[in-house]
Amino acid sequence: MISLDDLKALARPAETKVVLLVMDGLGGLPRTFDGKTELEAAQTPNLDAMAAQGTLGLADPVAPGITPGSGPGHLGLFGYDPLQFRIGRGVLEAVGIDLRLTDEDLAARGNFCSVDSQGLITDRRAGRIPTEVCTRLCGLLEKIQIPGVELIVRPVREHRFVVLFRGAGLEEGLSETDPQEVGKPPLSVHAEAPHAGHAAEVANLFVTGARKALADQHPANMVLLRGFSKYPKIPKLTEIYGVKAGVLAVYPMYRGLARLVGMEAVKAGDTVADEFTALETNFARFDFFFVHIKKTDSYGEDGNFENKVHVIEEVDREIPRLLALKPDVVVVTGDHSTPAAHKAHSWHPVPVLLWSRWCRPDEAKGFSERECRFGGLGHVHAAQLLPLMMGYAERLAKFGA
Amino acid sequence: MISLDDLKALARPAETKVVLLVMDGLGGLPRTFDGKTELEAAQTPNLDAMAAQGTLGLADPVAPGITPGSGPGHLGLFGYDPLQFRIGRGVLEAVGIDLRLTDEDLAARGNFCSVDSQGLITDRRAGRIPTEVCTRLCGLLEKIQIPGVELIVRPVREHRFVVLFRGAGLEEGLSETDPQEVGKPPLSVHAEAPHAGHAAEVANLFVTGARKALADQHPANMVLLRGFSKYPKIPKLTEIYGVKAGVLAVYPMYRGLARLVGMEAVKAGDTVADEFTALETNFARFDFFFVHIKKTDSYGEDGNFENKVHVIEEVDREIPRLLALKPDVVVVTGDHSTPAAHKAHSWHPVPVLLWSRWCRPDEAKGFSERECRFGGLGHVHAAQLLPLMMGYAERLAKFGA
Repeated sequence: MISLDDLKALARPAETKVVLLVMDGLGGLPRTFDGKTELEAAQTPNLDAMAAQGTLGLADPVAPGITPGSGPGHLGLFGYDPLQFRIGRGVLEAVGIDLRLTDEDLAARGNFCSVDSQGLITDRRAGRIPTEVCTRLCGLLEKIQIPGVELIVRPVREHRFVVLFRGAGLEEGLSETDPQEVGKPPLSVHAEAPHAGHAAEVANLFVTGARKALADQHPANMVLLRGFSKYPKIPKLTEIYGVKAGVLAVYPMYRGLARLVGMEAVKAGDTVADEFTALETNFARFDFFFVHIKKTDSYGEDGNFENKVHVIEEVDREIPRLLALKPDVVVVTGDHSTPAAHKAHSWHPVPVLLWSRWCRPDEAKGFSERECRFGGLGHVHAAQLLPLMMGYAERLAKFGA
Repeated sequence: MISLDDLKALARPAETKVVLLVMDGLGGLPRTFDGKTELEAAQTPNLDAMAAQGTLGLADPVAPGITPGSGPGHLGLFGYDPLQFRIGRGVLEAVGIDLRLTDEDLAARGNFCSVDSQGLITDRRAGRIPTEVCTRLCGLLEKIQIPGVELIVRPVREHRFVVLFRGAGLEEGLSETDPQEVGKPPLSVHAEAPHAGHAAEVANLFVTGARKALADQHPANMVLLRGFSKYPKIPKLTEIYGVKAGVLAVYPMYRGLARLVGMEAVKAGDTVADEFTALETNFARFDFFFVHIKKTDSYGEDGNFENKVHVIEEVDREIPRLLALKPDVVVVTGDHSTPAAHKAHSWHPVPVLLWSRWCRPDEAKGFSERECRFGGLGHVHAAQLLPLMMGYAERLAKFGA
């Protein structure tokens, strides 16, 4: 695969506009051996017309057989090999609630949990306390004093929170405190990387402080910390390709992932139609647009085939508004597959539709997994799609003379 | 490609059963431009039905254009990049006769040969002496005394034998003694690697000893040694994926290759039907099964198109017995192509059929090289198939959050 340095050397300015439209978990499965996938079952006249003019393919987000999480799935679509660039779970959770991390921050995912009088865990999720209680308790945790360290503790939902340890010399590479079962005490943190000793001390001080601060707060009278991680060093899209990139996403996680690679988040509203309105509103402001549709994935995870089909159809109805903006390159795809039949992310390759005036038309009958098998893009690694988009957008100079 | 370390980190236990059914040298060629390959000519209603439900593809065992030997061909199918993990011929021959190697062993392939009174080779295969004679002469060779080295000399078949030099400091990287033509004397061994000097001395002492020990044994009055090699350090399938793996193979070479990666060999009988009976008998004992069918390759090498077709048909007739066991994932493929028209292993990609409840059906008309071109697996590296099988078997956790 071509390196980001090589791509950066080839990048050249252009007036072209590129839209990456991601239906989260788009790839599907038939419910029976002879049935249709969600995308095949959906009535998508507009996407089908684009497929007839465009070039199709299938993409592996990480590698054949590997099921991606949302982080790796999107990093791949943004042109980064997810096996090379890894985002820790603490960071992912932090960007998911719109926290902006600095280089001095060590992030961790937190759970409130219940412990008995001996300090043994009786409920790893503290009875899923309401988010309002979580918010109040985060306030208590933020008051813990650790010399040289600023604490930012923010609620996520129910028993889940994020803690940022902000201070010099806090390196990642820490063990987790969650023993993953009840009847045991929370584990103490130890350094698993050479320079993480100070961070381990800080994390243990926080845990000790939390035990005192929460003593009277049963069922949420203790915390478990996981996924200690720093903000990854990722070259930004702007630095590589010189594009001004914007993200339109209803859910904060995806705005956060896009910010990681240098995109600017704009107000996207709450519905699919809102997102396309935001695209119209902001179309002059950016060269590159990442539009994220969440609910294809949510319904896939619920095993709700019909509603996943309906979301795809809802997106299809907005396609004329997208094309009316006269984008130069449009890619419609997913960050991974979430077949309703599987009720979870899966390893299946993702259908890809690339549309531009420079396409060799595939003359496909429609946009579907089975048509994508025959597409002119072939079977690619997802991280190859962004260079492809930039190529079709005439934003990459000739390599060599 | 994803690393074995990453795969190990993702591996998770499951109750699923995976069967890798390898028809050695399966890939073929038409005899004329408009003809059919062996697989296409074969009547395979059961494999065709699996192809209609499953997902097809083409696999390159090593790299495009590269013709694999049996070792690399199988290592690829077991999920190891054959360009990274290399098995010497001495080791391959040794595992092929069920020898268990230690880390101190240097293995070599041996031939008995005939030399004249001047020591010039008159027959590189000693008139293909009967295996019983080979066995008796190996006993003579094993009596050769080399200080600090234990010798294990075992017959293979006819004029072929294996010698293990067991002792400290015996490194690989030696030249061969076979001049590859008659009328020349056997070559002496020299070190081609920095630390192989001691091993070269030992090998030359053995050759000198063999010349004396065999002086009266014409036509088998001398030896030729090739393929000096040590046991490769390969992480076992069990270590990586946590599967209990069994091999069902009529020929010892394939049991030996499978043992290299941690499979347990079970009694497989002599015929294709025997192997499927052994599969039934042992189905409860393992998570992963490698079933090896040899004769597709043998007939391919003989240029016997019809008999290769018959072996494929013989395997097809056993497929209902396989499916009756209710495996979760089945892959049917070859370790390389051996087109009867070519009478040798070839570089052509190998047809792959993956069948599981989680397949997007390819609706293929049958299992054939031409249908595999349109398969949903695409054109993959053979070493990607094992992670794919583990993915379909739900034995890999999500990568990232």
